[in-house]
Amino acid sequence: VLARFEQWEGVAARDLNLGPDDVVITTGSQQMLYLLSEALLDEGDIVINGAPSYFVYSGLLEVFGVQVRSVVEDEGGMSVDGLSALLERLKAEGDLPRVKLIYIVDYFSNPTGVSLAADRRPRIVELAERCSIDHRIIVFEDAAYRELRYDGPDLPSLKRYDPKNRTVAFTTTFSKPFSPGMKTGWTILPGDLLGPVLRIKGNHDFGSSNFNQHLLDRVIADGSYDGQVTRLREAYRTKRDVMLAALEQHFGRFAGGRCRWIKPAGGLYVWFELPAGMQTGLKSRLFTAAVEEGVLYTPGEFAYTPQPGLTVPRNCVRLSFGVASTQEIREGVSRLARAAARVGVHPA
Amino acid sequence: VLARFEQWEGVAARDLNLGPDDVVITTGSQQMLYLLSEALLDEGDIVINGAPSYFVYSGLLEVFGVQVRSVVEDEGGMSVDGLSALLERLKAEGDLPRVKLIYIVDYFSNPTGVSLAADRRPRIVELAERCSIDHRIIVFEDAAYRELRYDGPDLPSLKRYDPKNRTVAFTTTFSKPFSPGMKTGWTILPGDLLGPVLRIKGNHDFGSSNFNQHLLDRVIADGSYDGQVTRLREAYRTKRDVMLAALEQHFGRFAGGRCRWIKPAGGLYVWFELPAGMQTGLKSRLFTAAVEEGVLYTPGEFAYTPQPGLTVPRNCVRLSFGVASTQEIREGVSRLARAAARVGVHPA
Repeated sequence: VLARFEQWEGVAARDLNLGPDDVVITTGSQQMLYLLSEALLDEGDIVINGAPSYFVYSGLLEVFGVQVRSVVEDEGGMSVDGLSALLERLKAEGDLPRVKLIYIVDYFSNPTGVSLAADRRPRIVELAERCSIDHRIIVFEDAAYRELRYDGPDLPSLKRYDPKNRTVAFTTTFSKPFSPGMKTGWTILPGDLLGPVLRIKGNHDFGSSNFNQHLLDRVIADGSYDGQVTRLREAYRTKRDVMLAALEQHFGRFAGGRCRWIKPAGGLYVWFELPAGMQTGLKSRLFTAAVEEGVLYTPGEFAYTPQPGLTVPRNCVRLSFGVASTQEIREGVSRLARAAARVGVHPA
Repeated sequence: VLARFEQWEGVAARDLNLGPDDVVITTGSQQMLYLLSEALLDEGDIVINGAPSYFVYSGLLEVFGVQVRSVVEDEGGMSVDGLSALLERLKAEGDLPRVKLIYIVDYFSNPTGVSLAADRRPRIVELAERCSIDHRIIVFEDAAYRELRYDGPDLPSLKRYDPKNRTVAFTTTFSKPFSPGMKTGWTILPGDLLGPVLRIKGNHDFGSSNFNQHLLDRVIADGSYDGQVTRLREAYRTKRDVMLAALEQHFGRFAGGRCRWIKPAGGLYVWFELPAGMQTGLKSRLFTAAVEEGVLYTPGEFAYTPQPGLTVPRNCVRLSFGVASTQEIREGVSRLARAAARVGVHPA
């Protein structure tokens, strides 16, 4: 896998102080989310993420009794100024020693589809290093969707800016771009974290499926992996375009054109903002109406961890175009529009 | 997998109050060892196992800060009288409320190759139920080696004696009898433990490889699974016999015939007892000499958790005939004999 990483980054692994021993194979990248968290986090520690962010990870963090502090994301992903201000505030409050992880889904994020802007990448690593005073703050780069790119160039990883292999844990997966059933992820870890993480993994499962690793090794070597990634990219790109067209058709003029959605350049999700005041939560009228129409969405508020100083938007929705067929996507958006029309827009 | 279980036990799943929803698929049975332990154990709790017992599980228990109390095993596995006496003692000491699990590798145990005698099985389940006063004591049945049977009939599981699906968690794996690389295990859990275990598993890895499950489903349906199990059984049986013959040849008359070993009816291990006083630990002269001769063994003392009242034998060794070829097995035993001869026997 290091060869792939070298190819993506256009840099030799040894120039980033990396060798094969710095790679861990896991049951999907999801397993690494747990393992690294268990290795690094004690109760009361602080994890910084984006708002919104991958809610399965935020949910998992509850197990460890840590606090989540979120930096608002914009169309370029996590704001560097926002992160800097948060770190300053935590420092002033004496809480900097509790900050252990900065978690970023930096390619076609779940839930927004947004990628971290290229110019922000070195600055975030630098910030983490500058704030690593009495202990290291690890940047946890979740690149699960990196290979599911439909438009634009590939961006350098955060890991690219960590030439000593000290600050960034880069995790990704073969499952999303190749075959979800593989459940095989891989991570480049700072060398000193390898031992603790592998000890925990040893307790959990004593190693991931060797068969799947051999299989992946072969399909990568013979080129069929890349062929499948290309096919999946084309299929998902089409689905994305169908979803965006359906949104335009059904919601373009809804409530006087007050809906917004992000056109993702990759990944599996469209982040969809309904008019202010139109609630989307599990107990909302919209959600009930959607279920009645036979369509499901993920309420956007799931992707926010409530905390002082953070206003959680209640009018957002994560739509997924991964599994559904183009026909189902069209039908689903149309049903959602019927649900929205039934509920109607109330003043914010 | 329930159909397999029905076939093994000669009883309908519904007569044991079991349905498909009571089965959990994991990354090998190893993962269930962790998950069920995490679900049930708090610091200071007590887990009962055999002496000797599977040392990877005992090691894993250290994470949870629990106490291990061991019941001496004999040629019929865990002694019911020993278990009963231990439970009585714990009750008298007021510690019964802390006992959460009784862990038994009841088919061709790692490390001894011994199986739990048929007549002990219902009695152990009954004991656990009788001692479940203010809370349930779960019998954790690790049947990983069940299908690797070379002689004798298949024995009914402990689960067979739990018709209400309340007391016994039965875990086994497709990896050992079919293909280690599969890393796919399955467990029948008491229904109310399913939710907690699946929540933890969701955090750990969000589900096991679907691909491997489909693959296993197919090979089981078309009979090639059973064919492979038969082939592996024959191959391992041959290796076992080669190892036993080599032990007879090299150790039959060693130190006046004071070596003992168990002929396992299944599994992957031979438990080998050297003359009393001949230490086998990592720092022993025998271990050093063995490494110098180019052969490795697992010191038997690893399989014991030190505790008051337990005498840990220092002269035992676990030999494995799983991976090595018959040629390597012969050579390995011969090297071990050279190492033992170099060290010599000292008075006990």
